[in-house]
Amino acid sequence: MHSSIVSGLAATKPFIAPESFERERGRPLRLRLGANESMFGASPMAIEAMVRASSQANLYPDPDGVELRTALAEGHGLSIQEVALASGIDELLSLLARVFINPGDTVVTSLGSYPNFEYCVNGVGAIIQRVRYRDDAIDLEALSQRAHETSARMVYLANPDNPSGSWHEPSAVLAFIATLPPDCTLLLDEAYAEFAPDFAIPAHAAVVRSRTFSKAYGLAGARVGYVIGSPDHIGGVNKIRMQFGVSRTSQIGALAALGDQDFLANIIKQTAEGRKALSSQANALGLKTLPSHTNFVCIDMGDRPTADKTVTALLERDVFVRKPWADPLDRCIRVSIGTPEQMEMFGEDLRTVLLS
Amino acid sequence: MHSSIVSGLAATKPFIAPESFERERGRPLRLRLGANESMFGASPMAIEAMVRASSQANLYPDPDGVELRTALAEGHGLSIQEVALASGIDELLSLLARVFINPGDTVVTSLGSYPNFEYCVNGVGAIIQRVRYRDDAIDLEALSQRAHETSARMVYLANPDNPSGSWHEPSAVLAFIATLPPDCTLLLDEAYAEFAPDFAIPAHAAVVRSRTFSKAYGLAGARVGYVIGSPDHIGGVNKIRMQFGVSRTSQIGALAALGDQDFLANIIKQTAEGRKALSSQANALGLKTLPSHTNFVCIDMGDRPTADKTVTALLERDVFVRKPWADPLDRCIRVSIGTPEQMEMFGEDLRTVLLS
Repeated sequence: MHSSIVSGLAATKPFIAPESFERERGRPLRLRLGANESMFGASPMAIEAMVRASSQANLYPDPDGVELRTALAEGHGLSIQEVALASGIDELLSLLARVFINPGDTVVTSLGSYPNFEYCVNGVGAIIQRVRYRDDAIDLEALSQRAHETSARMVYLANPDNPSGSWHEPSAVLAFIATLPPDCTLLLDEAYAEFAPDFAIPAHAAVVRSRTFSKAYGLAGARVGYVIGSPDHIGGVNKIRMQFGVSRTSQIGALAALGDQDFLANIIKQTAEGRKALSSQANALGLKTLPSHTNFVCIDMGDRPTADKTVTALLERDVFVRKPWADPLDRCIRVSIGTPEQMEMFGEDLRTVLLS
Repeated sequence: MHSSIVSGLAATKPFIAPESFERERGRPLRLRLGANESMFGASPMAIEAMVRASSQANLYPDPDGVELRTALAEGHGLSIQEVALASGIDELLSLLARVFINPGDTVVTSLGSYPNFEYCVNGVGAIIQRVRYRDDAIDLEALSQRAHETSARMVYLANPDNPSGSWHEPSAVLAFIATLPPDCTLLLDEAYAEFAPDFAIPAHAAVVRSRTFSKAYGLAGARVGYVIGSPDHIGGVNKIRMQFGVSRTSQIGALAALGDQDFLANIIKQTAEGRKALSSQANALGLKTLPSHTNFVCIDMGDRPTADKTVTALLERDVFVRKPWADPLDRCIRVSIGTPEQMEMFGEDLRTVLLS
């Protein structure tokens, strides 16, 4: 007999995996630009470290992740008590939902935001309230207002945002935090922070920040995320987190990746160039793009049916992209930045699809 | 503000990691025989597969783990709907607690059993009831009786058992299952199943079984576990499980390990020989050992103070073993099986400690 919460949940899946498309269609994807993975790969130093670690996979990882947490804390100017590791933002969202939310509590997010967050909130029996995007960006004022109206226990803000790619300056985020109700925790998802112009937010008792090695560091397959928060919040995480959530090889790989900041800087530069190249190609086809501070760009297809049709037509050509699921962004397709060659290939595919 | 459940939990850690001992003492361990890792390592085929996968760590793993689940289902004669992956038994225990237990429910386990299970049960706000070992094995009758007395929602049984090493025949487990109250789910932890003489239990609606690649397969660092249960139970797991819990490299490594059954058979054989060698060495020192169907052996030190002192004295010699935490097994030290050389080294260390 299942628990009350699980009994009350519908069977659901936050994503259809690219592998599912491959299995359904019986052939591999030619361009995988739908999951915002880094097409530039991980640092060679990280790969080399993981290769070396492979022969030690019989040993459990350090459950306290001290080496990696120490390096992360140093990088952020924090103490190790302000950092906890997790098996990607996937585990973090689930953990943070359990640390901060009771069944029946209200959580405010943006209409169309990360489906996995809603999945995790549903998983603790809480109630989602969604606020519409405004001008294709997250509406901070409306988020705060809704939080007050619903006595929300948590607000979720991705900055930079997925799927819009938009970004709020630290000063705007700080002003927003100041408006939140007492006892409301802000979950600031900074998965794309490395791509943003500036992401320095001072520590704040009402804020927990989630970070990942999946995007700029190119380690999506390794499953390494971390949460930054007050020692009290991290203490809460430590009461229920998995002990061995991050694999030994992944901890070692992430540490090496963190040590290769030159590589990271180059990825950020190449990603910015890729955004320009992709936007130029879209513009050349008469399409607008949304400003992006991430490793993806939303191309405005004008309306939802056209965007839906484009995603399907691209998939027929073995090109995987995704699209935002809710109005008003559902008129767009969301394309991950790839290498110059991949961006060129994608431009040709998009042209073919639009002309056919 | 933390959730009610997390607020009510004491700060706790189910384990002190071997890495903690190394950091405290400022030098590496010479023998790491306290975590029941496979000292024989993983299959060379698995290591080779993980090495190859390292350069693709920028890609997310398949969230549905279809290739690995298909291979596991085939191996067990099950459908893929009866198998779910997780990031080791660590994630599984937490997941299964959430799938089956409500806050305030009672869960029955053995006094002295796997600390991580109790940590996960506490993490959902449920109440632990513990049943004493009898004759250094799990007391099935008492477990069932306590489950009835407390209207338990879940019973935890590790078979083979950690830390005793004891094992109940499938027929005894089946008879036990038949005595459980209705609406009580048996969590059958089969982490050490590959080492047991026989572990074939037919599918049962009241049973979920947890398995791992951490022990016989030598992939503790990779974090791959799986749960076997009815499609209904796996459906419950799928409502709240992590989407990307198992790293890409780990899925690939586990699949290759599964394909190398010759290697596994050899590990099982070497482990059985190691148990004999370790027992002989203990016997030669005038010590008895508990019968074991796992990759570790409990050596009976006579009483708790002696066992405690022995663990400490071994650690002073850079030898890491653990000991059961509760009466009556707390008179033992628990030693993982290693290579013949490691077993010989350990025997010498134990002799030195006992004679000093």
